[in-house]
Amino acid sequence: MAAAQLTTDHLTEKHRSTLDQALEAIRTRAYWSPHPEHPKAYGENGSLSAADGLAAHKATLQSRFELDQPGTDGWTGGEVSPYGPELGVEYPHADVDVLLPAMRAGLAAWRDAGPELRALVCLEILARISARTHEFAHAVMHTSGQAFMMAFQAGGPHAQDRGLEAVAYAYAEQVRTPLAADWSKPQGKRDPLELRKTFTAVGRGVALLIGCNTFPTWNGYPGLFASLATGNAVLVKPHPRAALPLALTVRIARDVLAEAGFDPNLVALAAERPGEGIAKTLAVRPEIRIIDYTGSTSFGDWLEDNARQAQVYTEKAGVNTVVIDSTDDYKGMLSNLAFSLSLYSGQMCTTPQNLLIPRDGITTEAGPKSYDEVVADLAAAVDGLLGDDARANALLGALVNPDVKARLEAAAGLGEVALASREIANPDFPDAVVRTPVLVKLDGAKPDSEAAYMSECFGPVAFAVAVDSTDDALELLRRTVREKGAMTVGAYTTSTEVERAVEEVCLEESAQLSLNLTGGVYVNQTAAFSDFHGSGGNPAANAALCDGAFVANRFRVVEVRRQA
Amino acid sequence: MAAAQLTTDHLTEKHRSTLDQALEAIRTRAYWSPHPEHPKAYGENGSLSAADGLAAHKATLQSRFELDQPGTDGWTGGEVSPYGPELGVEYPHADVDVLLPAMRAGLAAWRDAGPELRALVCLEILARISARTHEFAHAVMHTSGQAFMMAFQAGGPHAQDRGLEAVAYAYAEQVRTPLAADWSKPQGKRDPLELRKTFTAVGRGVALLIGCNTFPTWNGYPGLFASLATGNAVLVKPHPRAALPLALTVRIARDVLAEAGFDPNLVALAAERPGEGIAKTLAVRPEIRIIDYTGSTSFGDWLEDNARQAQVYTEKAGVNTVVIDSTDDYKGMLSNLAFSLSLYSGQMCTTPQNLLIPRDGITTEAGPKSYDEVVADLAAAVDGLLGDDARANALLGALVNPDVKARLEAAAGLGEVALASREIANPDFPDAVVRTPVLVKLDGAKPDSEAAYMSECFGPVAFAVAVDSTDDALELLRRTVREKGAMTVGAYTTSTEVERAVEEVCLEESAQLSLNLTGGVYVNQTAAFSDFHGSGGNPAANAALCDGAFVANRFRVVEVRRQA
Repeated sequence: MAAAQLTTDHLTEKHRSTLDQALEAIRTRAYWSPHPEHPKAYGENGSLSAADGLAAHKATLQSRFELDQPGTDGWTGGEVSPYGPELGVEYPHADVDVLLPAMRAGLAAWRDAGPELRALVCLEILARISARTHEFAHAVMHTSGQAFMMAFQAGGPHAQDRGLEAVAYAYAEQVRTPLAADWSKPQGKRDPLELRKTFTAVGRGVALLIGCNTFPTWNGYPGLFASLATGNAVLVKPHPRAALPLALTVRIARDVLAEAGFDPNLVALAAERPGEGIAKTLAVRPEIRIIDYTGSTSFGDWLEDNARQAQVYTEKAGVNTVVIDSTDDYKGMLSNLAFSLSLYSGQMCTTPQNLLIPRDGITTEAGPKSYDEVVADLAAAVDGLLGDDARANALLGALVNPDVKARLEAAAGLGEVALASREIANPDFPDAVVRTPVLVKLDGAKPDSEAAYMSECFGPVAFAVAVDSTDDALELLRRTVREKGAMTVGAYTTSTEVERAVEEVCLEESAQLSLNLTGGVYVNQTAAFSDFHGSGGNPAANAALCDGAFVANRFRVVEVRRQA
Repeated sequence: MAAAQLTTDHLTEKHRSTLDQALEAIRTRAYWSPHPEHPKAYGENGSLSAADGLAAHKATLQSRFELDQPGTDGWTGGEVSPYGPELGVEYPHADVDVLLPAMRAGLAAWRDAGPELRALVCLEILARISARTHEFAHAVMHTSGQAFMMAFQAGGPHAQDRGLEAVAYAYAEQVRTPLAADWSKPQGKRDPLELRKTFTAVGRGVALLIGCNTFPTWNGYPGLFASLATGNAVLVKPHPRAALPLALTVRIARDVLAEAGFDPNLVALAAERPGEGIAKTLAVRPEIRIIDYTGSTSFGDWLEDNARQAQVYTEKAGVNTVVIDSTDDYKGMLSNLAFSLSLYSGQMCTTPQNLLIPRDGITTEAGPKSYDEVVADLAAAVDGLLGDDARANALLGALVNPDVKARLEAAAGLGEVALASREIANPDFPDAVVRTPVLVKLDGAKPDSEAAYMSECFGPVAFAVAVDSTDDALELLRRTVREKGAMTVGAYTTSTEVERAVEEVCLEESAQLSLNLTGGVYVNQTAAFSDFHGSGGNPAANAALCDGAFVANRFRVVEVRRQA
């Protein structure tokens, strides 16, 4: 291995204070981020400007994405942007019988680097990703269908925050045990028993990251960096429709590892041929000891049931609920909900689906509002928000795949449509499928409605479910979280008693609750270092981003003791 | 619920400093224990003296063990001491359809108590157990077959240490996230976004502790206290032959919970009728969200495969190896190994089984020793250690059950017997089955030996396996740990190179290593707060006692956020 160009001293000087700030942030959970959200913040100090980012993105298109990985036995690609164009990028296809052993070769040196150097290397990877945020924004936009600004922020700084958060948790967890200890046990009048002990954090082996289509970086970075920082190698299996953002990530990681004197094969890409389904094959390989997965409940359950040689962290489907009991800011509530339902066409695991509204209506500061009024006013709020096509395009993005469109169209048949989905033209990308959300009325008391509101309908579909009372809403909330899981719960109420009751349901069913959001924070958004994404305690996910449990079992501590 | 007799102030004053010391100890991993090891240290400040402890033990015999649990539908017992006498204790048998819901009733109040008060209540339970160490010693002795002094120490202070260690880890893990945070995100010239967030640690529900026969308290307390301290209720299912120590524990826990104003049903006993096999029934109940188990690989694997609604922590079988390459203290090595093989007749999950010795012999400070010499000298060391019957009884204890005796007898047919097992008479307990270890020679190169040395032969059975070289020994060590798991590995060498090589195997295969022990510390003993028991990284156990991973997934953090 060549001498390291990136020395430990250099990495320490550049990143140690950032790591310390991240460690402080996960402890206080106050607002913090080292990654600017505004596109104009980039373009200096080595980061790509908007123009350079776009140019870099274009340069990757219609070409082979070289990674110089062992065991490359061909090339595969085929991504088509939800905005229309074929990306034309071809990725190396791996012979995993060659690649997996090669990924293990660097593990001992990576282990011996120790928790701090591993964290610093991860921070250098993140810093280089950050510097190319403009390029990543285009890659995320043209794989997920997110609008540019969302792709920039969620796919860039917010994803980098989640990666850094995972590094901070991983570091903190490993250094809870000292590297060495002297142990001296008194023996009365005899000499004490004395031992010299060393403690080494050892990764479990090769981790597998199975990426998702909608948030390839945001949902991918926590597992990737948690595994890498705890001493594992990471094989990245991107979603076949969203390979580019993770391929860019893998290339940067390999560059940094090599420059820091480690084996670049500690991070590798496993792109798949159409229909190959390599996730299933990889998931049960004996070398794979950790799996991170975001996607369908069926495959998540399959992984949990079958990849028994691995620690499996899954984020699956859920059904998110908002309980609407009362409000003292009716307009604020409506505009906040309208935004939540519209953002990225509801293609977020955190988007509310079921709005539970008492059939006798709710109280507001503007007087009582009937169920029908609330639904009509919400429909109007969504219409108002998305009335201007340019604004609608900037908020909605494009439908990520035809399945979403099919679900959206089927949803209109599930009940009375309070707000129909509209097609929006995108002048920049005429082939993009841009659709506003549909809002469907359902009667919670009718058994035939239940199949609709008790299933995840991923995409721009919301159900206004009429319930008998707020108590009824809370019972339905409890049942939904318990049986279907939820990434988020929202509630609007001016009653202390109702607030306490909805909190109690969320505490008992382990769901993350946002109360009375009427301003610029939305139930579907969480901030790294402060908010937990999911709880890991209901069926929607078996892990939370990010906490001690997310990192603690990715490594083990091996003790060696000697007589002193 | 009655007003609490045990106030938070009182508990804080009594236990907070102990908790702080425990937190410091798990951080430094220096020697520490608040629980005296010497029997004479008890008898004052409210603790039972030797005589009072024996009297208390005798008072529990031949009687019903009242616990006042809901759903008691009968009585069951039948423990017979490995030393001979029937204990004659009858325990309440539970209708779990009544008991499990009753155990959930107190969960919300236990959650609301918060991490610190829960920890202090656990410390009060441990303090009361500690005060009755003499009574527990008899209970452990007459269920496990351990000799009195070992039952006293391992079943008393060492078990209490492991319980306290789990409480410390549980507390530390929960308070990593603050109870509340104010979050303010700058928005340029606009007002910042502001949220008030609260974070609540919530237990997963009811935890099931499945106790073992040999170390009911030592192996039981970590899971019991980790679950309780993280906000769960705990149902204790003792081994039917070792119910008394855990029944005493449950009674004390229920008393303390009630006195502190909590529902005593947060801890309950599930004793079973002969052949009832309730562990299988309980393990898949939806209320059971956590399981701690120590025992056979087959049932541990069954739990992991079937109790999918629960977090499952298992300690199963393993094959422990000692690599003998060379030594500069031949006598010290032999006497240390002789003790390790003899203690509690090898009925420890940490007892060495396979002693790997090069067939060409080893180098020592007393000159080279052939394989045959090493084996003969070790046999002589064991003989010498156990030559006096009183000393032998004090070290060996009694065989815990007829299975151990059967395995011991069968082992003599597996190869050439270098040291035959002897029967030792126990004048105090004529019915006790006391046996010295058998040492059997096996040739590691002969395929028909492999079935013997590659299986756990739990009990006083050691194999002196002749290997071609130390390299060969290391390969066999690696294969054994990888395929069969190991709780402990020992090695003797004067070579830095060999030392480094055996360390590397243990790091790569995740096994805990003791090097060149020749004095009063033995490979089969670990100390809470400093040593990890198992690694959780090889097939012998999926968890280590105790680390962050052992506690972090027993609770989840539920966040509630509100606009500020």
